[in-house]
Amino acid sequence: MPSTLFHTDQLTIIGPGLLGSSVALGLRQRGFSGKIAALARRQATLDLAQATGVYDHLTTDPAEAIGPATLVLIAVPLGGFRAVFTQIAKYGRPDLIITDVGSTKASVIEDARATLPDLSRVIGAHPMAGSEQAGPDAAQADLFVGKPCVMTVAPGDAPEAVALVESLWTALGANLLRMTPAEHDRRVALVSHLPHLAAVMLMDIASEHGGLDLASTGFHGATRLASSNPPMRADILQANRDEVRKAIAAMRRAYDQLDQMLADNDRAAIESLLTRAQADRAAWLTERDINATGTEEST
Amino acid sequence: MPSTLFHTDQLTIIGPGLLGSSVALGLRQRGFSGKIAALARRQATLDLAQATGVYDHLTTDPAEAIGPATLVLIAVPLGGFRAVFTQIAKYGRPDLIITDVGSTKASVIEDARATLPDLSRVIGAHPMAGSEQAGPDAAQADLFVGKPCVMTVAPGDAPEAVALVESLWTALGANLLRMTPAEHDRRVALVSHLPHLAAVMLMDIASEHGGLDLASTGFHGATRLASSNPPMRADILQANRDEVRKAIAAMRRAYDQLDQMLADNDRAAIESLLTRAQADRAAWLTERDINATGTEEST
Repeated sequence: MPSTLFHTDQLTIIGPGLLGSSVALGLRQRGFSGKIAALARRQATLDLAQATGVYDHLTTDPAEAIGPATLVLIAVPLGGFRAVFTQIAKYGRPDLIITDVGSTKASVIEDARATLPDLSRVIGAHPMAGSEQAGPDAAQADLFVGKPCVMTVAPGDAPEAVALVESLWTALGANLLRMTPAEHDRRVALVSHLPHLAAVMLMDIASEHGGLDLASTGFHGATRLASSNPPMRADILQANRDEVRKAIAAMRRAYDQLDQMLADNDRAAIESLLTRAQADRAAWLTERDINATGTEEST
Repeated sequence: MPSTLFHTDQLTIIGPGLLGSSVALGLRQRGFSGKIAALARRQATLDLAQATGVYDHLTTDPAEAIGPATLVLIAVPLGGFRAVFTQIAKYGRPDLIITDVGSTKASVIEDARATLPDLSRVIGAHPMAGSEQAGPDAAQADLFVGKPCVMTVAPGDAPEAVALVESLWTALGANLLRMTPAEHDRRVALVSHLPHLAAVMLMDIASEHGGLDLASTGFHGATRLASSNPPMRADILQANRDEVRKAIAAMRRAYDQLDQMLADNDRAAIESLLTRAQADRAAWLTERDINATGTEEST
């Protein structure tokens, strides 16, 4: 990789877990020469983060971590954002630029608005990477390569803040997409939160009604997301409640239609649905392979 | 692998696709010394099967394939079983033993009963392996190692037929489970057909409502089964219609309950559901790893 065009004097990662530490590792590997600090509430997290060897400074003291920062990246669970913004309001300098990796975007802006006087230097982001794994020890320098990453940019945002956050994700190899927080939240409800819930339901129903002794590779892949961290996922579902409920309603309508096809024994309709889904997935995989430069499996 | 305890003079595979040819390859690799023949309707399938190098004889002629067989393994899509049993009734010897790898079991017995005078030598089986891939060229000698395989045994079944089919799957390294066709069909509706349908729905909804540009690794795994062969899957859904509809009803109730939790903003209930599913999956993975001697990933 060539050295990055991204530069800032001190990047502080608030929450140096899987995502936060992957950002730190990825930037360092791509030649980032600024200082990288980490702030965590628990010393155990900082100990694991220290073992990555990528941080210049690790602390549990918000003043120490936020005071000298020029860019803060928030990578805590959604339920912790309000407290983090309160700390930033207290210790951050007026020229501090703020970004995050939160899984929902409207709730993040809402939390920021409740606490910060000026949102023009808060540029939300959401890299679509990482799911069941957690912790600094699971961090990977190439986690974001070829993965979609949403940036939410509002009309009054400071151009230098937008440019800095954009250069950060570009340096990490992500495919940047700009959209409104509302549009982001609508789409992730469909392609991230609904698949997680489907995995949870499949697992729960099989556990209750039996059949796990016959479950094999297909079931394994279909339920993988059910192994995700429950409190973190509960935060996401609550933060994106309205869009998740709309996605659930779409799923229920789809099941109703399918059940009717089966009740009618309508072979043509069933096969047409399956054929359409197969073709749509093949088209998506092709599109994804064109966009991605990563090394992930393609089937 | 030690040489197998399985022996029969001529095994004929009807439908030498992924599953049929994996049986042939697996037995040969484990020292099976009998003859293996393949019957297919299309010459193109036979050409691909021939390339595996495992078959002694390949033909499109039912008389030629079934006449000399001592054991027939049916590995065609479910919609083709009735025609195959008709051929067996015409060309099979009275001492012929019959097994299959069909994804549903009640429909197979029903098809056999409609055609064959005596079912005591028909021993149904369903190895839980293989899904999106197809064709003799995708066959693997170790496909069944460590995977669950159901055998459906009825009270009047011939002991030598039961023993032969049991030794076949044991030789291939599968974990054999005996249950009734009805119980098998109930369980696969929950752990195989419902996960397939969930993948289809997730893909269909995201294609219709948007969001595929943000879809990443989690969505990829959750929708993998939507790439399965549509006519083959439509056969399965039709053959297991009643149990699939019951599984869909369970899924709809689960979505209703979840939607109510979200409507109530009931954090405790949401987190409890997610925690239960996570724990159930961890327990299943542990159980599976104890049963399996295979090499599949365990997360």
